[in-house]
Amino acid sequence: MLDLGVCLAYGRGSYPAYLQTGDTVKHALATTREQDFAAWYQEVIAEADMAEESGVRGCMVIRPWGYGIWERIQKLMDARIKAAGVENCYFPLFIPLSFFAEEADHVDGFAKEMAVVTHHRLKAIDGTLQPDPDSKLEEPLVVRPTSETVIGKAMSRWVQSWRDLPLLTNQWANVVRWEMRTRMFLRTSEFLWQEGHTAHATRDDAMAETLRALEMYRSFAEDVLAMPVVAGEKPENERFPGAVATYSIEAMMQDGKALQAGTSHYLGTGFAEAAGIRYQDQEGTQQLCHTTSWGVSTRMIGGVIMVHGDDDGLRCPPQIAPHQVIIVPMLRDKPEDAEVLAYCEELARDLGAVDIFREPLRVLFDKKPIKAATKRWGWVKKGAPIIVEVGGRDVAGGNVSVLRRDGLYDDNGKLASAIMPRGDFVASVGVMLGEIQTRLHAEARERLLANIRRDVTEIGALAGAFEGEKPGWVEVQWARPTGDALDKVVEWLKAHKLTLRNAPMDAEPVDGVCIFTGEAAVERVLVGRSY
Amino acid sequence: MLDLGVCLAYGRGSYPAYLQTGDTVKHALATTREQDFAAWYQEVIAEADMAEESGVRGCMVIRPWGYGIWERIQKLMDARIKAAGVENCYFPLFIPLSFFAEEADHVDGFAKEMAVVTHHRLKAIDGTLQPDPDSKLEEPLVVRPTSETVIGKAMSRWVQSWRDLPLLTNQWANVVRWEMRTRMFLRTSEFLWQEGHTAHATRDDAMAETLRALEMYRSFAEDVLAMPVVAGEKPENERFPGAVATYSIEAMMQDGKALQAGTSHYLGTGFAEAAGIRYQDQEGTQQLCHTTSWGVSTRMIGGVIMVHGDDDGLRCPPQIAPHQVIIVPMLRDKPEDAEVLAYCEELARDLGAVDIFREPLRVLFDKKPIKAATKRWGWVKKGAPIIVEVGGRDVAGGNVSVLRRDGLYDDNGKLASAIMPRGDFVASVGVMLGEIQTRLHAEARERLLANIRRDVTEIGALAGAFEGEKPGWVEVQWARPTGDALDKVVEWLKAHKLTLRNAPMDAEPVDGVCIFTGEAAVERVLVGRSY
Repeated sequence: MLDLGVCLAYGRGSYPAYLQTGDTVKHALATTREQDFAAWYQEVIAEADMAEESGVRGCMVIRPWGYGIWERIQKLMDARIKAAGVENCYFPLFIPLSFFAEEADHVDGFAKEMAVVTHHRLKAIDGTLQPDPDSKLEEPLVVRPTSETVIGKAMSRWVQSWRDLPLLTNQWANVVRWEMRTRMFLRTSEFLWQEGHTAHATRDDAMAETLRALEMYRSFAEDVLAMPVVAGEKPENERFPGAVATYSIEAMMQDGKALQAGTSHYLGTGFAEAAGIRYQDQEGTQQLCHTTSWGVSTRMIGGVIMVHGDDDGLRCPPQIAPHQVIIVPMLRDKPEDAEVLAYCEELARDLGAVDIFREPLRVLFDKKPIKAATKRWGWVKKGAPIIVEVGGRDVAGGNVSVLRRDGLYDDNGKLASAIMPRGDFVASVGVMLGEIQTRLHAEARERLLANIRRDVTEIGALAGAFEGEKPGWVEVQWARPTGDALDKVVEWLKAHKLTLRNAPMDAEPVDGVCIFTGEAAVERVLVGRSY
Repeated sequence: MLDLGVCLAYGRGSYPAYLQTGDTVKHALATTREQDFAAWYQEVIAEADMAEESGVRGCMVIRPWGYGIWERIQKLMDARIKAAGVENCYFPLFIPLSFFAEEADHVDGFAKEMAVVTHHRLKAIDGTLQPDPDSKLEEPLVVRPTSETVIGKAMSRWVQSWRDLPLLTNQWANVVRWEMRTRMFLRTSEFLWQEGHTAHATRDDAMAETLRALEMYRSFAEDVLAMPVVAGEKPENERFPGAVATYSIEAMMQDGKALQAGTSHYLGTGFAEAAGIRYQDQEGTQQLCHTTSWGVSTRMIGGVIMVHGDDDGLRCPPQIAPHQVIIVPMLRDKPEDAEVLAYCEELARDLGAVDIFREPLRVLFDKKPIKAATKRWGWVKKGAPIIVEVGGRDVAGGNVSVLRRDGLYDDNGKLASAIMPRGDFVASVGVMLGEIQTRLHAEARERLLANIRRDVTEIGALAGAFEGEKPGWVEVQWARPTGDALDKVVEWLKAHKLTLRNAPMDAEPVDGVCIFTGEAAVERVLVGRSY
């Protein structure tokens, strides 16, 4: 039961109804992960004010808390991209159909999900505003689903000599892929991402860049998002349209499903040939470049929710929390309030002077004219790492009441709000935030490791391994079939609602036969349900 | 004549051809501002690698130096926006036609320049890839030219009570306005901007926010872009479609033309009515909100070029220079090169530890495998504030050779490269960058003030005032006519290729009659040619 006695002593009376009764811990969300993971996910997004439906088909509005997380991801990823010598540019939103059509596999892969601009003017006709027939474009423009083609054209102008290589570019942009079934952050018609595009003199250089980007994504997911992932190569059927090799990082959600959270592609010379990206080598011979592309998107935010969320909402890793510490004043509409506000003001100033993760700590003093308890639960649902409540009693004692989002309840199910001297809190807040970051990562890592089975060697057992509620993944040995043989495998998996995730880079060597074909295995591959 | 002797002593032989001969100072660009300002502008953009045509109608590719300047503008503007309590969100790229049609003036203002998405799939028909007729959208989607309508819909969901006000949002986004005649940065079909959108309980609150944003833009232009501007209200004919009042900052280019560099709009209750943005006031009555919107865009970069550029290229204000100090090693393909490189490495480290404008100094050690002189002139054209050249002789003497972009030549027309002790340079680089920022601003401010005439009181003289080459602006007194009377004024001005810019906030009180109508004047207004 919640310790309502202590809470009420601070005037914290207005809990949500579902928090006020019952003998077991009740939570801030109406739906638990156990009850309905998909509904829980939507509820977290709504209750944490992260995003909402926009009224525009398949497009979401990203609200301040969700967008704030994206800004943190952008800032920290951008620093890593720049540190690798990659320069940001901006390329057009629109791609002429003819650009797109030059790489056959590529256009096949995207043609079915393209938003197409056909007119450039509206006109009232019979009283109804509609595209003006006289403004029909000679060549339709595709709203970029990805930018290999238009960036390839630019590269063909920029690359002349071996001295111009490697050419390392990136852009932060919105892209559109017309999706029939959308889910916020995970699959939306418009989404935000970064797309790196590079050109190199040799296959080896391009492959090294592909793997550098993959490693950048892996370490970013682990260190910044506290989201453990498996990095590996995607099987042929999961390759980016037009790529020679596609690599991914795969994260495990709390329902056991996989989320592809970032990809890196070695594109060979196909796109270079289509766009004419050639260089003169040191001997004076014209050569085709080898290109790469790599991207992560707002999808990562969906992953963060499903990896770290609990039945009280999101738990936001401190590295990406828009605000890391929230100060909530407990006001009583009495003259003493002024003292509480001044105390909070000073606390906010002191916390703002603390450095954590090599940046100033991000503190918010929440002065909104709403009840303190409503604020507290609002911040719990958003997953602010630390909530500090300050009432008259705290001020009198020189204390603060500290609630950590990674340990919301004590063993008896009471809210684990800890009263501590103000100075001690300021001195230890950096350590606390570091601990929260580490604990979220450790918890997720333990879950990932505990839920990858490696003991399945027969196809019958493979299907059976996914019969439970949260089956996790199975790593099997396989012969890496291609073409029709692979199609048959994929078809069998599809019938069981399974997919091939990737062949982990750090897998053990093979020592058996392919679970699908019985031939000698050549690598290990992860099988799982997925988003 | 250039001091080629000194230069050659450092092995700086490879000047562009036009720099190597002649008795007068020759410059790095082929076209001077005097010769052809428009051609000069395009040449700066090309030679400084800022942007280029993309091959997509009206859309540009923003290259690393141009995009780096935009990133600096974004970072510094975003901090000011956040400091005002405004929260960033992200809203859909696509706006259903029906949303747009709800505000009549608004849709009238934009209907003629809208990119319209009508299909969501491509299909090969008779061997040609084209929009699949079966994928035609029931309702066309407009690619946002601005987001009042879609953000208004969101606000109508978010605002319920007076407690929810003010609602302060902003987004950084791309927008599309189909332009028939485009010019890089100044007028492109797609451009990048921020758009602030706020909702308030009263007219006064909304007007205060409108003017706060205007003042934010004014001080940003002056302090960050070193670009002096005049803030004022636009006349009725120049209002944003649907606005009750539009304010702007106007900057003067070196050819005397005006560039509107930012706008802030008080929208009244029209958009609130169209989108249903209502709140319950403290007495329980439903009220319409008063809304505002305000924006600046990549257009600012065009302004920076035309305010600060000279015949050697851009001069980039240190606050927005992607790199503030460039280190160019003078290598001779000899073993001593290693010493030069090590010396530069250490210099870069020391400079990176300097703080300037409350941020770490941005230093680039340019190690590209091209000739030092080519590098130097490349950075001159880009407008890097300080270029440091280091040769073997500098290393031996513990010196550096410093070239300041704001004082490229001495009085004799020689390159004003100053040899100074390395330690002195590191100790004074912050002051130098501050000086460059201040000097660029002072120079532009002097030009602005010197080129606004206030002595024109007769309409005949007004036309005459613009007959010279770089006529600047004329501030006249007027009666602020509206409707048909204003149309006649605008028509007369148009016939003389003139426009009304704004009524400056800080103008002197009126003391005469309207130059256009002869009625008693009510305010002063700026007349000028414009971009």
